[in-house]
Amino acid sequence: MRLGTVRRNGTTQAFRQDGGVTTYLPAGDIGELLSRPDWRSLAGEQGAAPEAGSLAAPILRPGKILCAGLNYYAHAEEVGQEVPKYPTIFTKFANALVGPTDDVVMPAASSKIDWEAELTVVIGSTVRHADEAAAREAILGYTVLNDVSVRDWQGRTPEWFQGKNWDRMTPWGPVIVTADELDPESGLAVECEVDGVQKQSGTTADLIFSCPALVAYISEFMTLEPGDIIATGTPAGVGLARKPREWIPAGAELVTRIEGIGELRNRCVAE
Amino acid sequence: MRLGTVRRNGTTQAFRQDGGVTTYLPAGDIGELLSRPDWRSLAGEQGAAPEAGSLAAPILRPGKILCAGLNYYAHAEEVGQEVPKYPTIFTKFANALVGPTDDVVMPAASSKIDWEAELTVVIGSTVRHADEAAAREAILGYTVLNDVSVRDWQGRTPEWFQGKNWDRMTPWGPVIVTADELDPESGLAVECEVDGVQKQSGTTADLIFSCPALVAYISEFMTLEPGDIIATGTPAGVGLARKPREWIPAGAELVTRIEGIGELRNRCVAE
Repeated sequence: MRLGTVRRNGTTQAFRQDGGVTTYLPAGDIGELLSRPDWRSLAGEQGAAPEAGSLAAPILRPGKILCAGLNYYAHAEEVGQEVPKYPTIFTKFANALVGPTDDVVMPAASSKIDWEAELTVVIGSTVRHADEAAAREAILGYTVLNDVSVRDWQGRTPEWFQGKNWDRMTPWGPVIVTADELDPESGLAVECEVDGVQKQSGTTADLIFSCPALVAYISEFMTLEPGDIIATGTPAGVGLARKPREWIPAGAELVTRIEGIGELRNRCVAE
Repeated sequence: MRLGTVRRNGTTQAFRQDGGVTTYLPAGDIGELLSRPDWRSLAGEQGAAPEAGSLAAPILRPGKILCAGLNYYAHAEEVGQEVPKYPTIFTKFANALVGPTDDVVMPAASSKIDWEAELTVVIGSTVRHADEAAAREAILGYTVLNDVSVRDWQGRTPEWFQGKNWDRMTPWGPVIVTADELDPESGLAVECEVDGVQKQSGTTADLIFSCPALVAYISEFMTLEPGDIIATGTPAGVGLARKPREWIPAGAELVTRIEGIGELRNRCVAE
């Protein structure tokens, strides 16, 4: 099943897709949908599949946005870090998010803007102190996110947050593919292109901490709830690690794609 | 004016206090109250002042919880850090919060639990790209928070989040005192006691980045909205910096007090 949110008639509406059939549901987004325990059996109206350009972020205001850093072997190597013993976790808030084809807003205060294509977990049920089996059960599905980063601000202090949470810089979507249809451990291609040039080409088989391992680890210290999301880190090929370093130019088209899910296609527009 | 949220009749209700008069307002908490542009003129019912033990956190689910690290000269010195050029910002989510007299939940997974008494800013109006004068205008008022920290988890990775966001470990309140009645730059005493023994005794005059400076800095990269809160860092005297190191024992009473606002009084109870 694929779950998403479409903009139409001046508002937003959740939809699901089973096989080739699109059903529009009585909820404003997937966040609202997941708040209903009976969401899987909700009736809706069948209709034409939404156009890519009409999609909003699947969940408009996730309760928690968590991100793993340094979670691909090849990326840890390119930034000169040892393979970590524990997941590195940082956060975003909903102000950072935009939809799958929305403009990414490039700040006037920095030109060191970098890409980070990331497989992203969407939580489907409340979970705390989970082992990996229970964590796997709590995963609703997977989506795509680009953790567009302001590298000079990220490096100003030990904490990366101020490089990671600029307004309207983090595109995600286009849809959530449920876990029964997708297995990241089998190796899904993760790609990022800037103006048509491929910058990242990794595989989720290279993840240091798997999706269930991340959910289990985080659930040791906090409760995860339906609609929370976890970006699982980026593969090699970020601009920061290139020689010479590369940044996203204003006006560029940023494409972020994961096999079996779909792609984000965002214009990076000066503030 | 003092603003708070009381638990009564199985629900919660916002109240304000002007002089000696308590008025109960038609909102479930101060977060809901602030979402109404006319909140300052809302009518309510006068009543007896609420008892300390009946208070909930002033805002039940703040949209954003931001925290400054290394923001007192004496604390930067005790942990061996230079005076920072930029504020260090990290985050919490609402799962971490408890009210001013609620139990703090001590995790089974660590015994290295530390105290951090903190003056906390509450945002009153939407603000982005603010200079310090505009930032000052956006501050609704001030409250008290204890950023109870799990030091071994905090130190596992470069990012502190996993030591800072354990469920139900961060007490705050008891009320928000509006900015017209309180001036942190004049120097308010910030105190923390564990089982009646004073551990921290600082003054907000020792802040490296003032409250308006923090709001202005954060607003450069993200929009702050009514009900967002910013914990401004802790003064010297944390357990981590003591020789030998000290931690909060399970069962301890933790008292956190700021001059002109009031105190938190929380029992630290094993999970």
